[in-house]
Amino acid sequence: MSALTATRIPSSAAGLPPRITQELAARSAALCYTDLPEDVRLRVCQCLLDWIGVTLAGACEPLVHMLAEEAREQGGHAQATVVGHAMATSTRQAALINGAASHALDYDDVNMACTGHPSVVLIPALLALAESRGVSGRDFMTAFAAGYETMCLLGLATGEAQYAKGFHTTATLGTIGAAAACARLLQLDADDTATAFGIASTMAAGLKSMFGTMCKPLHAGRASADGLQAAQLAARGFTSCADAIECPQGFMATHGGNASLETAVPNGGWHLRHNLFKFHAACYGTHAAIEAARRLRLQHALRPEDVRFVTVRVGAASEGVCNIAEPLTGLEAKFSLRHTVAMALAGVDTAGLDSFSDDAVHAPDVVALRERVTVELAPQCPGLTLGEVVIETHTGTMLRQRHDSGRPAKDLHEQQQRLEDKFRRLVEPVLDASERDALIDMVARLDTLTDLSPLAGMLARRACARLL
Amino acid sequence: MSALTATRIPSSAAGLPPRITQELAARSAALCYTDLPEDVRLRVCQCLLDWIGVTLAGACEPLVHMLAEEAREQGGHAQATVVGHAMATSTRQAALINGAASHALDYDDVNMACTGHPSVVLIPALLALAESRGVSGRDFMTAFAAGYETMCLLGLATGEAQYAKGFHTTATLGTIGAAAACARLLQLDADDTATAFGIASTMAAGLKSMFGTMCKPLHAGRASADGLQAAQLAARGFTSCADAIECPQGFMATHGGNASLETAVPNGGWHLRHNLFKFHAACYGTHAAIEAARRLRLQHALRPEDVRFVTVRVGAASEGVCNIAEPLTGLEAKFSLRHTVAMALAGVDTAGLDSFSDDAVHAPDVVALRERVTVELAPQCPGLTLGEVVIETHTGTMLRQRHDSGRPAKDLHEQQQRLEDKFRRLVEPVLDASERDALIDMVARLDTLTDLSPLAGMLARRACARLL
Repeated sequence: MSALTATRIPSSAAGLPPRITQELAARSAALCYTDLPEDVRLRVCQCLLDWIGVTLAGACEPLVHMLAEEAREQGGHAQATVVGHAMATSTRQAALINGAASHALDYDDVNMACTGHPSVVLIPALLALAESRGVSGRDFMTAFAAGYETMCLLGLATGEAQYAKGFHTTATLGTIGAAAACARLLQLDADDTATAFGIASTMAAGLKSMFGTMCKPLHAGRASADGLQAAQLAARGFTSCADAIECPQGFMATHGGNASLETAVPNGGWHLRHNLFKFHAACYGTHAAIEAARRLRLQHALRPEDVRFVTVRVGAASEGVCNIAEPLTGLEAKFSLRHTVAMALAGVDTAGLDSFSDDAVHAPDVVALRERVTVELAPQCPGLTLGEVVIETHTGTMLRQRHDSGRPAKDLHEQQQRLEDKFRRLVEPVLDASERDALIDMVARLDTLTDLSPLAGMLARRACARLL
Repeated sequence: MSALTATRIPSSAAGLPPRITQELAARSAALCYTDLPEDVRLRVCQCLLDWIGVTLAGACEPLVHMLAEEAREQGGHAQATVVGHAMATSTRQAALINGAASHALDYDDVNMACTGHPSVVLIPALLALAESRGVSGRDFMTAFAAGYETMCLLGLATGEAQYAKGFHTTATLGTIGAAAACARLLQLDADDTATAFGIASTMAAGLKSMFGTMCKPLHAGRASADGLQAAQLAARGFTSCADAIECPQGFMATHGGNASLETAVPNGGWHLRHNLFKFHAACYGTHAAIEAARRLRLQHALRPEDVRFVTVRVGAASEGVCNIAEPLTGLEAKFSLRHTVAMALAGVDTAGLDSFSDDAVHAPDVVALRERVTVELAPQCPGLTLGEVVIETHTGTMLRQRHDSGRPAKDLHEQQQRLEDKFRRLVEPVLDASERDALIDMVARLDTLTDLSPLAGMLARRACARLL
């Protein structure tokens, strides 16, 4: 009887493109803790702190309860903590649930190189694996960086094309990113890492048309769990194509992208240096417009009744991402440029989760302002981070403000402060002040931890007793 | 805090295409046992019998052991039988492993409407669900037919385009088909079934470029497990797009296909009437050429030494599917028109699994014949089921034979006989004669079973003790 061995239909017949799969795998597998510059290490810790905050807050969402119930029904060894649910389950199910929880509020960090959210696909898988195996903080940080850079390198080569086609790149690129991170934590060599990328590339799925439904956060959880499985299967000797990303009818051919990594390395050498944290609880595509509107309001002491007409100019990519004209729910409001700009002009706190409740979306003052907002899509304006707001006041004055939300913070200590504020606010319903401080402290000295299990254990606290 | 409710970015702005998702869901949810004509019921039983045979035989493959080990490591309630492994695990993991096992040998049945293999994605999920819930044979048969028809209706609207793009339709369409079958078994209404289709459509993944690796059978297992999960999540109230298949940037837009079901209903009304069983243990794309070569050999009493030159003419779609020129392993031989035609001309039994061992691929007589075989791809020849073999003998005679492997059997009782022969041969290493007869009998009176658990239990017998 034939054994299924490492074979494939050769791609050489089609004229070999660059060996992207191998190159990415070799980079990822070779990354060491000592390679990480000091600021990159700090950024990794900031990603983890922010992830814990949004995940503990997101754990209360109904979709997370459904996934947790599903996991209880399926059963599984108690290998890894389900954040905020006082339960442990198998590593894959924990990655699925925690990934979905961390993306449920759309309040997690972003990297425009992959047009998506690396932390919510990388951390759930890594944390589950680390907890089940007793991994050190440094190994976790290295693996996170390996996954992050892989996802963003691949993102620059494919992300925009995939996103334009309709794929949710957090999910598609994220599956390969999570595989990279887990392969690094499992210490796979370059060949096995490439195999893991192949398995992950044929698991990768997730459609942008699901935005606004529970499937969007599900994508993040699935990418995390699937990347973990891909790495574990590769470690067991499972086979896939060695050139899965670039081969004919491979990942790029079916999902989009250029077969080149030449321009995929960013300024500063590290994609982690371009990580963007969210300080508004809405889709990142609304942030530039929110910031521009907020500044105009503050600079000119604008009151809602001063505003006659508002024009929001953003890139054409915003259509189908964050341009719901008349949101009916809190979730839809997060994907509405008109609504979020109206909130900013009404002085509503766009950082607060409560501001995006289903009730708040009908607030008369905001709705009245929203009626005066028009969105103009500029075909020549690239990406989702550039926004311009023009306000015509009732006195006939024209006010104009631009903002680029794609510029990462320069002052990491200021960013740390903002992140700690955001974190404290998000986890306040779950943890008392001393626990919050202890977690912030533990994450800050991640490089000194010999075992992440205690940290993971601190996240088990039930976040939403009222629903259980 | 905002709850994630049933919301989505409206697609109406883009001009509404036909409501395929809703229409398919309504059909699937409404199907009753009494709707199934007598011959369709028999065909369902034949699909199950054939599935049991190929799965018990495939359970010994190394990839299946890896997946079973992975499931043991993850843990899970003992809800469903892992075929051939003397273990039970959670329904999702059982569907994953059994789906991969049933497709591992590429010996499972086919329907050209979906350019793929319905049984290997439908039965694993249904059997796991049925076993865990004590479902009757009739409910299983109805759910199977619902999944089968959904997968093939969608297949005619999308399959060829998806396959040409590089998607493994067994996996992509199969995820939605498995969701349909499970939703029917769970008695979801049309709306919840549509939600399950939406969840399944954003989970759907699998690349044709993985053919020849362990990922191909993995696709079938994943489609089965994911379809099951999609249906279960929909039953819990999870949300997705109501028009996921046809909406802008939805399943068809990203994966290929026409937004119409108008021509998707086949002659005879039931896609199940066009199910094709495999009686050669190789890729279905090689079957027409094998049959043509076999007939020429028998009709003209050809000996290998009579053959001077062989031309195999097949559709252009065979390239990238089953045209490995110089196979080095048994698995590659299954995807080699040159090799399988040489086997048929050498009188090798192409129905035997042993004929596709890694050793057998180097048999000198077959390799010598293979050297004389040329494959010609005919761009105008559609699909993978038409083949012509032209043989020039050493005496200068030209022999020509065509075959269409896409025509389903007309005599169902003759087909039953062939299937029972194939089944007995495949499971001989695992079950003794009386057990084989008992299983054949049980499947034949599937409509009388009130609970499928005993049948599932009979499949637990360890198939490959030597490897465990």
